[in-house]
Amino acid sequence: MALFRWVPGTTPEQVAAVDRALGELPGRIAGLREYRTGPDAGLAPGAWDYAVVADFDDADGWRAYTVHPDHTRVIDTLIRPLVAERAAIQYDGGAAS
Amino acid sequence: MALFRWVPGTTPEQVAAVDRALGELPGRIAGLREYRTGPDAGLAPGAWDYAVVADFDDADGWRAYTVHPDHTRVIDTLIRPLVAERAAIQYDGGAAS
Repeated sequence: MALFRWVPGTTPEQVAAVDRALGELPGRIAGLREYRTGPDAGLAPGAWDYAVVADFDDADGWRAYTVHPDHTRVIDTLIRPLVAERAAIQYDGGAAS
Repeated sequence: MALFRWVPGTTPEQVAAVDRALGELPGRIAGLREYRTGPDAGLAPGAWDYAVVADFDDADGWRAYTVHPDHTRVIDTLIRPLVAERAAIQYDGGAAS
């Protein structure tokens, strides 16, 4: 999963374009089992701006996702220009669910 | 959800104690629908150290969780002493799943 802080001046339209583009990936990337993205809901001060949570069958699924051209195109064209900070982690979240 | 970076010197045993304590919360906090916690898997350089992803029925469920004494006790006694950085967001991740 990854959290993002956007650069100042980022517009809701730009974020909506990111969200739409990411929303198309589950049908295109085999092994991307569950994909939940979206902007912060504004419930707590200091929150980051945008979240991407992706579930995979295994680490190979994650690796395929990281280099899939449909994914890297969204990163290169829509996400990277907006990113001020990115915090990411890959973890096995099954244990405590 | 929240990501954490631990302070230098944090031990696997301390992280395991956090994970065990958080793992007890789903049975104690009504409205905590799904809870997935765990340390980084070490797949990518620069990753943060620990993730907590919690799903709630609604924002009120999240608010109840934030102030539940069993939760704040884990934060105060086990988590806060280890935290170097914390990145959090509350979002409606249903749209793109």
